[in-house]
Amino acid sequence: MIDSNVADFLIWAKQKQTRIADILNEALPATSIAPQTLHEAMRYSTLNGGKRVRALLSFAAAEFCHTPDTVAEAAACAVELIHAYSLVHDDMPCMDDDDLRRGKPSCHKQYDDATALLVGDALQSLAFEVLSTPQLCSNANQQVRMLNILAKAVGSSGMAGGQAIDLSSVGAKLSQTELETMHQLKTGALIQAAALLGAASGSQQQIYAVHIYAQNIGLAFQVIDDILDVEADTGTLGKTAGKDADNEKPTYVSVLGLELAKKLADELYEAAIHALAPYGEEARRLRELAGFILQRSF
Amino acid sequence: MIDSNVADFLIWAKQKQTRIADILNEALPATSIAPQTLHEAMRYSTLNGGKRVRALLSFAAAEFCHTPDTVAEAAACAVELIHAYSLVHDDMPCMDDDDLRRGKPSCHKQYDDATALLVGDALQSLAFEVLSTPQLCSNANQQVRMLNILAKAVGSSGMAGGQAIDLSSVGAKLSQTELETMHQLKTGALIQAAALLGAASGSQQQIYAVHIYAQNIGLAFQVIDDILDVEADTGTLGKTAGKDADNEKPTYVSVLGLELAKKLADELYEAAIHALAPYGEEARRLRELAGFILQRSF
Repeated sequence: MIDSNVADFLIWAKQKQTRIADILNEALPATSIAPQTLHEAMRYSTLNGGKRVRALLSFAAAEFCHTPDTVAEAAACAVELIHAYSLVHDDMPCMDDDDLRRGKPSCHKQYDDATALLVGDALQSLAFEVLSTPQLCSNANQQVRMLNILAKAVGSSGMAGGQAIDLSSVGAKLSQTELETMHQLKTGALIQAAALLGAASGSQQQIYAVHIYAQNIGLAFQVIDDILDVEADTGTLGKTAGKDADNEKPTYVSVLGLELAKKLADELYEAAIHALAPYGEEARRLRELAGFILQRSF
Repeated sequence: MIDSNVADFLIWAKQKQTRIADILNEALPATSIAPQTLHEAMRYSTLNGGKRVRALLSFAAAEFCHTPDTVAEAAACAVELIHAYSLVHDDMPCMDDDDLRRGKPSCHKQYDDATALLVGDALQSLAFEVLSTPQLCSNANQQVRMLNILAKAVGSSGMAGGQAIDLSSVGAKLSQTELETMHQLKTGALIQAAALLGAASGSQQQIYAVHIYAQNIGLAFQVIDDILDVEADTGTLGKTAGKDADNEKPTYVSVLGLELAKKLADELYEAAIHALAPYGEEARRLRELAGFILQRSF
């Protein structure tokens, strides 16, 4: 990307990040409503900034496929709520036991374990509530399909399943293929769902292109995450750095080494861009977003 | 109910209990599919018998409203999956810390805390996956509404919210009204959803009658539960008896005393039956089910 394009993309991304913050703020129950602590903790765990990569994927795919704004916004909101729920549960003592999230105490540290458990549970329900808003889509069959895509991406054949494989892999030696399967479920499934929900109004060809694009982006995202976990310090990362190595979790860096991991990330980026080759300006945000995700410090 | 009616109802209930066990068995991922331990634990926590009161409510309301079998079965399956998820999370050490569930080790005792957390998470997703099966309802708008009813019943304004209030009420002195609000969310919301989802094809009047019926049944169910917690022993109950009193949790018995609690249960039963007064034979199963729930040892 040349500089003026980068600037233009960053303005777009900033606008969408502000928009999703507003949408989440509206979707989350007010702290004035009982049970107040639960609602406060749900807001604490969701409205804490972050790059909102999943929401940006929904928005970029929606621009590509001319999906109506209201549908794209509900999709973006649902995937960010699911992502927030997964972080709250992942940080709990019985899982990754992480005290820090985006530079602040994680939910169970700020509140307690029981609250964190309920926050995650309620955020998952809220995601499905938002996406099942009556009359959200002019075509209700499309809306049912969207709900089904999200449910499958989140459950035991998606995110929760990947988390289970991740837990059982501590101390184990995984091949690159096994590592890919685990990440494909743990982070890839929701990233794909984010893009596919945004692409709801697209043609079959467009949806297929988004599918391939998102598959590669999802893996690239995880490879970069593993690289950052080794290279960045805790302050920059906003979470505990070197955590995966400390936990003896297999990562792309531990399996491939740093240089090959960086090469893999580049290849996945190219494959994602290639999937959009038949398309022009309408796929611009998806292309730019791939670059944004790959060089996350820009 | 006279004896032959009781026998007839029990045959009906037994048939439906067998049917829902088959449906759950089919909806749950096979243990041969990875992640195997997660899938095994999901099946362990769901396919463990129980009276399936929520499924029976869906089926009875469906007979009343002529809701198609496939829709009623998906509704029954979804509410039982949600119920199973709630029990798994409720039993965890950071919540009620209960080692026993239906006479067997609870999920986190049989497996571990991390697995129990993921089992609950994945069962919740699976409920929404089942109910969002494409083409389940001939009217997709109806299906979206059903998904919305379930999501609202489960989240922070429903079941998870009630659980949060319950946790914060330990050692507190609640009035009967406060206790009712808590239970209305914690158990009532899902019981109402079970009945309302079964009633999906009903007229507005029928759905309203089911709503009032289920509201009263939901509370009666909780009052009976509190009475049983005091009167039954651990063997009969299949869970640790006297647990609520030990935990200093307010119950209907602790607030009202045993006799008044029994009187309240009777009154709620009468109110539920009264809501069905305009209807004849078509509401029969709902009436019988009310009796079944009230005298749970029959």
